[in-house]
Amino acid sequence: MTFTVPTIQDITQPALAASLQRQLDNKTKPLGSLGRVETLAQRIGLILGSETPELREPRLVVFAGDHGLAAHGISAYPSDVSWQMVENFLAGGAAVSVLARQHGIGLTVVDCGVRHDFTPRPGLVINKIAPGTADALEGPAMSPSQCKMAMANGAALVKELPGNALLLGEMGIGNTSAASLLLARLTGLDVADATGAGTGLDAEAVERKITILRQVLARHPDARAPLEALAAFGGFEIATMTGAVLQAAAERRVIVVDGFIASAAVLVASALQPAVLQRCVFAHRSGERGHALMLAHLKSEPLLDMGLRLGEGSGAALAWPLLVSACAILREMASFDAAGVSRSEVGSVMS
Amino acid sequence: MTFTVPTIQDITQPALAASLQRQLDNKTKPLGSLGRVETLAQRIGLILGSETPELREPRLVVFAGDHGLAAHGISAYPSDVSWQMVENFLAGGAAVSVLARQHGIGLTVVDCGVRHDFTPRPGLVINKIAPGTADALEGPAMSPSQCKMAMANGAALVKELPGNALLLGEMGIGNTSAASLLLARLTGLDVADATGAGTGLDAEAVERKITILRQVLARHPDARAPLEALAAFGGFEIATMTGAVLQAAAERRVIVVDGFIASAAVLVASALQPAVLQRCVFAHRSGERGHALMLAHLKSEPLLDMGLRLGEGSGAALAWPLLVSACAILREMASFDAAGVSRSEVGSVMS
Repeated sequence: MTFTVPTIQDITQPALAASLQRQLDNKTKPLGSLGRVETLAQRIGLILGSETPELREPRLVVFAGDHGLAAHGISAYPSDVSWQMVENFLAGGAAVSVLARQHGIGLTVVDCGVRHDFTPRPGLVINKIAPGTADALEGPAMSPSQCKMAMANGAALVKELPGNALLLGEMGIGNTSAASLLLARLTGLDVADATGAGTGLDAEAVERKITILRQVLARHPDARAPLEALAAFGGFEIATMTGAVLQAAAERRVIVVDGFIASAAVLVASALQPAVLQRCVFAHRSGERGHALMLAHLKSEPLLDMGLRLGEGSGAALAWPLLVSACAILREMASFDAAGVSRSEVGSVMS
Repeated sequence: MTFTVPTIQDITQPALAASLQRQLDNKTKPLGSLGRVETLAQRIGLILGSETPELREPRLVVFAGDHGLAAHGISAYPSDVSWQMVENFLAGGAAVSVLARQHGIGLTVVDCGVRHDFTPRPGLVINKIAPGTADALEGPAMSPSQCKMAMANGAALVKELPGNALLLGEMGIGNTSAASLLLARLTGLDVADATGAGTGLDAEAVERKITILRQVLARHPDARAPLEALAAFGGFEIATMTGAVLQAAAERRVIVVDGFIASAAVLVASALQPAVLQRCVFAHRSGERGHALMLAHLKSEPLLDMGLRLGEGSGAALAWPLLVSACAILREMASFDAAGVSRSEVGSVMS
């Protein structure tokens, strides 16, 4: 299976942007008074190329994979939690299951490389590259061909999705480490600044995690280009997600980015094709250390800041109704003229 | 009509709080990883007195009134916008109409004292005290009996509402001034720090607004107790809302507070009965200057921070699905035992 990185076109559209702004300014409200809801409406309009954008059949995809590196330190949770949580997603009991159900978001779980054999069933896509990545302290987490295959899987998956919005989610014990490694390597941040408590390490364990991650970085001094770094540090779920992001961007889907790990996939994809970011809506600023710095590097302001650090796509699902609101404002709010409401006066003193 | 401020009981319930926390900790997620969604679930559980709280038939009430003070400076918008926007709410074209519809929130508009005669119709409650308050530069915005009547109206209105959640909204050209006056007087803040651009004044106009508000404060040196300040500075919509908040608190409804003006009503209500705050969920931090300081005074952290400064209850409606999510997490997420997911390990190194 081969994978060619698609060229992602610039979608800056001055005429459409001006028209969206004019529309927003004519709505019955003070200029700019819906704050970042207006920015969001602008962005969705530009992604979908519409003055009256409508989000259809949103799909949240949870990319799951295991990590060879997780065997080194013992994780805050055992690796078995990866497959157990996949079962939980499919049974409808996980946070993301609950939130996706609340908002009518379809949920797909992809086994990108979980160390477990799943029984096939609806809602589960088996795209397993291998049962977990290799140990990144010993060698690359995956081979170049494994990395390409994972990306191709992600692209192929998105091609089959209905609707025009992709919400990113993930599961994989060990994957905050992979995301921290990618952040450090691709942005030049010190790994200590890029590394957090993950699912709940104490301060001492975080220090040990940083030490190990520093060794991993030293083990792969030449893995500096985005795809080389991705292959060196993993994981399969991040590589598959990266392919999915590139394909979704090529199709001009609205990409709703969850937390630290989903942002790492966007970091890789946007390092390859910067215009990817024009299609992204960042759902929230995670409580995981490193995410604020990653968002700053991506020059992206997220919608929510609620101290979430769960992953799964839970933040993307929580933020989803804000996107729906932004579109509803554009499509359903009355204009000053239509509603017979007077406009702002000049020389005003108070309000 | 008389109005007696109800006694609002403390609803700290250590056993229920512990039980809610235990429930959250047993859900299939790392401890605390849903961040402020967990805090929100705790709060709603305590308000409704339930381990499995369920929000029923939410109702957003837009309290509308005009302000004598608005005639002084010419406002950023003419006073006629108050009644025109009431018509817009009822016709379904305003931002809050759109957002309430999106989330299935019932909308009620109350004429607390708009300078206009409305045709009665469904969804509109006529509780008009007078066609606009008096000019607070000349004397109190309302008489003590008008203030009591407005509060009684608000309480009576809430008694008739279905469900267990009240979302606060308001409309009234001039009402950021009333809110700034209440904030300055009840907290001791300088009025310059309590005053913002409202619906969109430029810097020079804000300075003139501050000068006028300083004169109003000087005109009423003795209006220091909450109800005296409320009567002196107005408006009818804030007084009616204050009565509604007290009644909703007495009934242990979940009170979703919108922006600067709704928070001013809560400021008055909580100055009378501090336990009111235990029933409140602050939806967002407004872009209106003074709101951040008001929230800090109320020791309240809002859910959203999106630069909104529209009022109407638009921020309360935008934040509403987060409350629904918090309850869904409590009621629908699987526990570790039920889902067969392994728990966190001791001595972990990474995640």
